[in-house]
Amino acid sequence: MQVVQTGRGAVRGVTGLRPESRRNAMSTKLNACVIGLGSIGWGAAVSLLREGFPTVAVDIREEALAKFVAEGGRRAATPAEGAAEADLVMVFVVNAAQTETVLFGENGAVAAAKPGTTFVICVTMPPSAMSDICARLEAAGMKAIDAPTSGGSGKAASGETTLMASGPDAVLDGVMPALEAMSGRIYRLGDTCGAGSRVKMINQLLAGVHIAAMAEAMTLGAKMGVDLGTLYEVITGSAGNSWMFENRGAHVVNGDYTPHSAVDIFVKDLGIVVSEAGDGCPTPLSDTALALFKEASAAGMGREDDAAVAKLLAKKAGVKLPGVED
Amino acid sequence: MQVVQTGRGAVRGVTGLRPESRRNAMSTKLNACVIGLGSIGWGAAVSLLREGFPTVAVDIREEALAKFVAEGGRRAATPAEGAAEADLVMVFVVNAAQTETVLFGENGAVAAAKPGTTFVICVTMPPSAMSDICARLEAAGMKAIDAPTSGGSGKAASGETTLMASGPDAVLDGVMPALEAMSGRIYRLGDTCGAGSRVKMINQLLAGVHIAAMAEAMTLGAKMGVDLGTLYEVITGSAGNSWMFENRGAHVVNGDYTPHSAVDIFVKDLGIVVSEAGDGCPTPLSDTALALFKEASAAGMGREDDAAVAKLLAKKAGVKLPGVED
Repeated sequence: MQVVQTGRGAVRGVTGLRPESRRNAMSTKLNACVIGLGSIGWGAAVSLLREGFPTVAVDIREEALAKFVAEGGRRAATPAEGAAEADLVMVFVVNAAQTETVLFGENGAVAAAKPGTTFVICVTMPPSAMSDICARLEAAGMKAIDAPTSGGSGKAASGETTLMASGPDAVLDGVMPALEAMSGRIYRLGDTCGAGSRVKMINQLLAGVHIAAMAEAMTLGAKMGVDLGTLYEVITGSAGNSWMFENRGAHVVNGDYTPHSAVDIFVKDLGIVVSEAGDGCPTPLSDTALALFKEASAAGMGREDDAAVAKLLAKKAGVKLPGVED
Repeated sequence: MQVVQTGRGAVRGVTGLRPESRRNAMSTKLNACVIGLGSIGWGAAVSLLREGFPTVAVDIREEALAKFVAEGGRRAATPAEGAAEADLVMVFVVNAAQTETVLFGENGAVAAAKPGTTFVICVTMPPSAMSDICARLEAAGMKAIDAPTSGGSGKAASGETTLMASGPDAVLDGVMPALEAMSGRIYRLGDTCGAGSRVKMINQLLAGVHIAAMAEAMTLGAKMGVDLGTLYEVITGSAGNSWMFENRGAHVVNGDYTPHSAVDIFVKDLGIVVSEAGDGCPTPLSDTALALFKEASAAGMGREDDAAVAKLLAKKAGVKLPGVED
């Protein structure tokens, strides 16, 4: 577990958590409620359980809840039921609209929660929407933290998610033991909700463009007769490498499009980039990558792994990628 | 020193060089000629000297030659003079046209070289041009290796350049001691000249797009009020990272556009990608990034560091980057 404190102008560097505070962390047993057992929410929920936090989960999928109960957790039928006894409500749904529904909609969490309950919103959404939702939480007598995640399902399962967190220091300090239980790294990005989401948005800009670039590189490589396994090995040791080339490029080389993160996630996340940038800030690479993800989604690949944009390009180029039939 | 053998279908993995062959390497003193003392060629030339290879250098810049003599090397007035006594001629000029001139033009190396001299062409050029030049070398009674480099001036200076090499095994084996003297890693990408250049071209596709994406990310971050030092620290630890974000992003954060690799290099290298891909293979990200580099060059930034594309975008967005005046 590593806590990184950054933000407010100067980079303050990496700060290791002292053993004493780690022990204090372990002895503080906040009651947690996790809303949304997708890949990241699931990892957070089981990590909280593993570290001894009483945790109740809410999801619309019966099988996810049954699996969580089998892990030793509790289940609730609605966000309201889950939030009623919680000190901490963590939200892991897909977008801003779903967040609004589980918080403020019918059987929503906020109306049922105790005053002063801390809501940690781990959803990638437009920074402006995050600021708005956090303000509404505070107006309802709750505390709010903006904390989108990075690192994917693998890191989440092992309790090593990265959090890009912002919000009042005292609020963040109060729930830090629980956040530490599910995170490998926590960036503290200032005391204003929205700041975490802005950094996450920039991360997604890069991630999305890099996936599209990987797809283009693999397609052109295949078209020119380069063995893709060799290409992967050389590029991952060279200046053309990216986190996404290394991660998603392996999917293309292995012809495995099992969705770890789906095409439609980047239709959403690059859509956020382009809409928040607006006319005032040019985003030519994001525009181009977004068009590719949209085209892949329209071609029926929306729920496949985001590396499937390579299949779209390869089809246009008339070249066969590993493990791809047509 | 690490030799990586890959290619011809299966990835054969990383093979450490045995101490005996390293000793053999050290006792083989090929006479080397280095044509072109730019950042990579300079690093190669001084690395060869350092490892005891008698080395003569050719360049059009008097000061580079004087500096090389001060390092203990020899100088030649023309490629012909430099190549006359060499067993190995390494070429580090900028593009295919310059390569043709130093090899086959007036006072060119080929006419003066001993039959069977090995020419190692470390220039990034279209793979089709590389194949053509190597074929002409062989037709002239010479041996040829296609070996573009990666890793930049820093790695070159310390003798740790990456080589993406292809060509006949026996030819490559014959000059391996000299290549090892200047390289941290040598990928052997098959016995056909052109194969190394194809992999290098894909590397440049990714590198160029990643630089442009870094520029876009930094500009949008600045526009939204994110501290760029903080953004840099978070992204370099997250899924949005790339080798180029880490390397060139630091230039933007520090406002330092000292040219380690210039904008015009990517006008050339992404131009190669787009022209070699032709109409048969879509390259939307490369097209978009190339347009940015061209626009930056047209705006007078062609000789600045390639990270200067960020200045172009920031100007359009009406936002100030660190260390940038207007």
